This record gives sequence, C-alpha cells and structure tokens, in this order.
Amino acid sequence: MATSPHVEPSPEDPATWPHVVVVGGGFAGLSAVRNLANKPVRVTIIDKHNFHTFLPLLYQVATAGLEPADVAYPIRTVFGHATNVNVRHASVTAVDQARNVVVLDSGAEIPYDHLVVATGATASYFNIPGASRYAMPLYTLSNARRLRNRLLRTLEDAEVAAESSSVALNFVVVGGGPTGVETAGALSELIDIVIKRDGLRLDPLKMRILLVDVAPRLLTAFPDTASSYAKKELEKMDVEVELGRSVVEVKDHSIVFSNGENLDTATVIWAAGVTASGTLADALDGPKGPSGRVLVGPDLRLVNSENVWCVGDAAAVPGVKDGFYPQLAPVAIQSGRHCATQILRVLAGEKTQPFHYHDKGIMATIGRRAAVAKLPHAGVIRGTVGWFAWLGLHLFYLVGFRNRLRVMINWTWRYFDWPSGPRLIVADAETAE
Amino acid sequence: MATSPHVEPSPEDPATWPHVVVVGGGFAGLSAVRNLANKPVRVTIIDKHNFHTFLPLLYQVATAGLEPADVAYPIRTVFGHATNVNVRHASVTAVDQARNVVVLDSGAEIPYDHLVVATGATASYFNIPGASRYAMPLYTLSNARRLRNRLLRTLEDAEVAAESSSVALNFVVVGGGPTGVETAGALSELIDIVIKRDGLRLDPLKMRILLVDVAPRLLTAFPDTASSYAKKELEKMDVEVELGRSVVEVKDHSIVFSNGENLDTATVIWAAGVTASGTLADALDGPKGPSGRVLVGPDLRLVNSENVWCVGDAAAVPGVKDGFYPQLAPVAIQSGRHCATQILRVLAGEKTQPFHYHDKGIMATIGRRAAVAKLPHAGVIRGTVGWFAWLGLHLFYLVGFRNRLRVMINWTWRYFDWPSGPRLIVADAETAE
Repeated sequence: MATSPHVEPSPEDPATWPHVVVVGGGFAGLSAVRNLANKPVRVTIIDKHNFHTFLPLLYQVATAGLEPADVAYPIRTVFGHATNVNVRHASVTAVDQARNVVVLDSGAEIPYDHLVVATGATASYFNIPGASRYAMPLYTLSNARRLRNRLLRTLEDAEVAAESSSVALNFVVVGGGPTGVETAGALSELIDIVIKRDGLRLDPLKMRILLVDVAPRLLTAFPDTASSYAKKELEKMDVEVELGRSVVEVKDHSIVFSNGENLDTATVIWAAGVTASGTLADALDGPKGPSGRVLVGPDLRLVNSENVWCVGDAAAVPGVKDGFYPQLAPVAIQSGRHCATQILRVLAGEKTQPFHYHDKGIMATIGRRAAVAKLPHAGVIRGTVGWFAWLGLHLFYLVGFRNRLRVMINWTWRYFDWPSGPRLIVADAETAE
Repeated sequence: MATSPHVEPSPEDPATWPHVVVVGGGFAGLSAVRNLANKPVRVTIIDKHNFHTFLPLLYQVATAGLEPADVAYPIRTVFGHATNVNVRHASVTAVDQARNVVVLDSGAEIPYDHLVVATGATASYFNIPGASRYAMPLYTLSNARRLRNRLLRTLEDAEVAAESSSVALNFVVVGGGPTGVETAGALSELIDIVIKRDGLRLDPLKMRILLVDVAPRLLTAFPDTASSYAKKELEKMDVEVELGRSVVEVKDHSIVFSNGENLDTATVIWAAGVTASGTLADALDGPKGPSGRVLVGPDLRLVNSENVWCVGDAAAVPGVKDGFYPQLAPVAIQSGRHCATQILRVLAGEKTQPFHYHDKGIMATIGRRAAVAKLPHAGVIRGTVGWFAWLGLHLFYLVGFRNRLRVMINWTWRYFDWPSGPRLIVADAETAE
C-alpha cells in the first residue's frame, strides 16, 4: 500500500522513488513539501492557484493597505530548485482511496503512494439565511480583492450620493476574532485616509463601522485584558463594538439581528468562523471532528488509512485534554512538517511519532501602533510594542524575502502616515479570461 | 460661451468660478488638471477608472515584471490637496456641445464652461479579420492583466501538455514599434525566468517568439542604427524578427500571413498601432485628422469651437511642416499643460498662444541592460547606458514617489537577476463584482 506495487524503489533511480502527492499550497501543504524537498521521494504539490496566499494579511489587501502580490507568492518559485518537486496548477475534484489516485478537473488521474490533504477551510455561515449570498467573506485572495473593490466603489459612490441625499453608510463586520477585529480597525483607517488624503467629500459622522459578535467579549482566544484593550482601541477609532448580538439574516443591503432590529448596510463582512465542510477533505472516507474537519490520529494519518494524511485547518488534530488544536497558522506549519517527517519514517520502515504543537503565541492587530499578543511565557503584550511584535512575526512568516521587503515598505509608509496606498478599483480589469 | 451665462464670476466666491471639465486621467488630462489646480476655476476630472495608468510600463505588467499597482496611481490622491479639483469616477457617454454639458453613464449631466477631451486612443486592428477578437492588445491595465494571466497559464498548461505531446508554443507579437519590441524582449525574459527559476519543465527549443511588422525595419521613429541594434539584441534573446510581413487574419489559435502561411499560435499580442476612432473624442463635432484623431487648431481648441479643447493621443495637433505631432507621452504632457494655460488666458480675456512641442527624445528598452534612446542633441544612446537612461526617465515620470520606489526595487531585483517576481495567475480572482 505504501509503495508502488510494481516497482521496487532504488536509491539510485529517482523514477522509482515513492510518490507523495500534497493537495493544497497553504501553510500546511507548503511546510510538508519543504520538508520532503531533496529527500528520496517524488513530490507533486497540486493547488488550484499557482501561488501561496499569506492568509493572516488578507484583511490588509481588502482594506487597500497591501497589494495582492504582497501576500501571494508563486509556489513554483518556492520549489524551483528542488528537483524532486513537481508543481501542478489544477483543482482536485476527487480522491479514490481504494485505487490510490487523485482526480483532477481535467479528468487526469494522479496515482500516489502517500497523500497529504492540506486543503484548508472555508467561511462558515452557520446556515444563516442570506449570509453566504450577501455577506462578503475574507478567506481567499479573490475574496479580499472583491471586498476591496466593493469598499472603494461604495466610498466613491457615496460622495456622489452625498450631494443629493443622506444615505447612511453602515459597514458591519460579523465576528470578533482576530480577522474581525483587524478588518474593522483597518476599515476605519481606510475611511480616514480616503477623506484626509484623497479629499473624498464624505461626512465621517454619516459612516458607521459596527463590529458584532454573539460572544460577550472580543478575541475569546486571548485573556480578558486583551479583549478589553482591543475594544477600547477600536472605540477610539470610532468602531462600534456590539457584543452578545446574533445575526439572523443577511439581505442585499441590510442585516437583521435576533432582537428584530433591521439595519441598512453598505457592506456586511463575514469573519464569523470557518469550516472544512464542502471541501475536498470533507469528501474523504472516515469520521469527522468539529466544523467538518477530518479526524486524524496522533501521527496525522486518517484514522482508517495507512497512507492518507491530513494537516492544517482541514484536520482535527487531537491536542491536550479532550480538545483539538486550534486552526492557526503555526499549527498548520508544524503539522505539515511533522507529517513530512512521518511519511519518511514510514517509508524507512520506522514507527510513526505523535504530533505535539509548540505554542508560539497568538497575535492580533487593531490599527497603526496598536496590537495585542499573547506569548506562551510572557503573558499579554499590547500597544506599540505589540504592534512591532505583530509586524515582526508576520514578516518572519512571509514566504519570499522580496515580499517581506515590499510589505516592510508599505508598513513603514503606513506607520509614518504617508499619503499613498494601492487604492485602485480594478474590478473591471478582469473579464472572461 | 466661455463663462456661465447666469452668474458673474467673483474672485472671492469659488462657487461662481468658471467650471472646467477634463475627461480622461491619462498623461494629458492629469497634466491639464495639475496646471489648473489652485487657480480661480472649478475643475472636475472624470475617468472611468479611479486611477491613472502609466502606459509606457504596461508591457512589464503583461510579462509579470511589475504589478498592476506599480503602474497605476489613484487620481484622487494626486489632487487630494487641491480644493478646487473634484474627481469623478464615471464614464462619459456623450458630449452635448450645443448645451455645454457632458452626459455620464448614470444619466447625470455635468455642465461645463470649458471642456478638455483627453480620452486617449485605443488599439487599431486595421480591419484585419479576427484581430480584435483573438489578438490581445496592450493599451489598458485590464489588457495587461489579461495578457499576463494568459501567458502564465499557457506556460503552466504547456508543462502538462509536454508530458504527452509536442505542441509548438508560438508567441507572435505584431508591431515593431517600441511596445512590440519591449513586449517581445520582456516575454523572452519571462520564459527564461519560469524555466530557470520556477523549474517549469519546458523545452526552450519548442518555444518561439516572433516579432513581425510590415515595415522593413523595427522602431521606424528611430534612426537606422537603433533599428539594427534592436534587431540584433532581440535575436540574441532568441526572438525571431520578421520584417516586411503583413498579417491578413488572426484566428483562435493561429495567424495567417499575406504569403498564405498559417502559423499555429499560443498567443497573438497586438502592438500594431492606435486609433482614436470609436472613442468619445471621435464623437465630437468637427473635422478629423489621421487615425480618427480630432483636428485641433494651434492653440489646441477644436477648429469649430470656442470652449472645447482636445489634448494627448486623441488630438491631431499640427506640428512642424505639414505633419502632426506623434502620439507620445511627452507630447500629451506638454499639450495638457499648454491647454490649461490657454484656458486661463481665455478666462482672463487674453489671446491664446500656439502649442510647440519641446522634443525630449524617445526611448525603447529591449531587455535587461539593453535599450535605445534618441535624444534631441546627443544622437542615439544604446546598451547599458541606454537602459539606465530609460529607467531614469520612466521613474521620473511615474506619478507617486512610492510607485517610483517600488518600481526601483523591482528593477533592481531584475537587474541582479534575483528569482522573485509577481508571477501570479489571478484571472479567477474577480468575478461578477
């Protein structure tokens, strides 16, 4: 099962080496392939995009602080010098676990000896009517670009409309986790910039940014002090934080809350949670964990498989006590690396080892010079120091050195409040192609 | 005619100042508005995009050397501090010269006292069958992005196809002017990079880049020595230069030449010429010059109008002898500035002055460290010195300082042959929005 049936692997002949197929070029997939590069295996990484997306900074693209290319990096370029790695730009439509092949959208079949599923998660709408149709998620580069175009166009149109009527411009961010907090803060900065720097003739008093969550506090993964600090900082930026509120419906230009209130909206941004349901991982044989995630054993293999592994956000990895590890970038990176090591062990006839997550801390930024970080041994850091810690950590994780340099320039600019920024509406730039 | 009929302008009341409407945010329109900013007029600049596009570097976006945001700059940001300038993100669908109003796509009418038409030109297909449908032009940011996605996707697909068949990958660039020469050279560099840096498994011998033109030499606006230098440099980069060849038809995946030859093609890039036909300028009352350009008097006013002006590529401006000035960025910039000055003179009751173009030279780049420049008093410069001259001139003209810095970083990278670059396929990033 774990090696090709007809050919005995020979150390001298790379064509006989076992074939590891990795589906997904996110943090987890990239990390797995990095640790398989230049080892005696043939590796094929398949992704529906030809680039890796740095998800933690997507909200910056959505709010015109960074450009798409700042948070994306061609997968081929990462592995250009690894002769045993093949990159395939395609969508995987099915996995045939009985025959050990993945099926591409072209119909082509790719056989594997080991399969690593690292297909991530997608926005969860919790079956709230209208949410998937009218709310805008923020989980792919495409999502971020659509949201940016929408926000910039709304502000442009509002200037014209302001001449004749008095439309209330309500931007609602649903979800008080890091993505929601970061997006609400960055949106406030964007509105500030377009009025002060671009001279858009808008009345700030007619614009509202609401951050709503059903939970009683923001950033529930952080200690209480971080939650109250984030709330205070957001309120300084004129973001209205509404906690303990649940959304029952999203419409084209309004949102309905559980208390019956119906609020007119310009845009509803959905940052309420993620799920692996409906993804390729969801279609794998075997039991599921929370949020449609694939249940894996301690070594990251599917509980009923010898040669199918699941890592990153798509996987429910048993952690300490009865819980699972959270869906975080560091967990994805570490699980990808662990999975690669285990595959090499299996191929060498060794026993697998259980995965343990080494907590690197969690962080969220609220705006220029304001961030919170929870570090494993240092407690909560906040303010400008937190902001620099956040910046450093994100730059450290950005894939290419050039991306880091570009992001650093953008951020330096933003820090010193200089007037530029990629506030381009490019929605009409792409058509049928 | 030249001022509003009902209100007498008062120096103290800006609301009574004459209204100048500028249509088009290219080199010419931007230059006109810059010279009207903070003068006693009300200015409205209207563009269908919210950004200015630096057209001379579009071919770099198309060949993944620069990102869209490197060659685009928000128009609002340019005029954010000019209180008399209003920016309108809309398409102008008609000009009613009898009533002195422009009509927007929303149906709204904008009255003007003076109108400056700076709507540029568009690709000319010379009625060659299939050209407008199948060949890819390079005249807008949207064109450049589509072409880039197409090129990158073609190369990705070719790797997969190469496993089974032997498809010849012919890229044909039609037009041997600066755009054609620059695109062919940059395309050769792109193919080199994806093979050497991204490890794309392609056989360079199966890929051909053809640069074809009906003229007997490249860069006909330059002296002979520049033409032969460009041809020699392109041939060093494995570009096949075919002169004296004319295209009679473009099909979905082939091109037909006048000698009957039918060549299979991966992509046909159209850089054969531009026209103002079919643009807003074309619909203005009055006589036309060559390529559908609007005939203007020496002061840049339409020959039959007191208050409608035309500048940039859309205008046929009488130059020395019997000819017209060429459609070049420096002509556009100087004509925009001249037009602004003349409008202020008319409003002050002074006589207009004729436009004279001050030749700043012309340049074209062929590749890394190879460019040609024809300077007014220095003759032809070529090679690395030409390349730096080209780089310096382009950076000088880029609108925002940050854009210059970013482009400089990109170019430094390219110069030293570092492996990165925004080779992202983002075609699927934008949908209905």
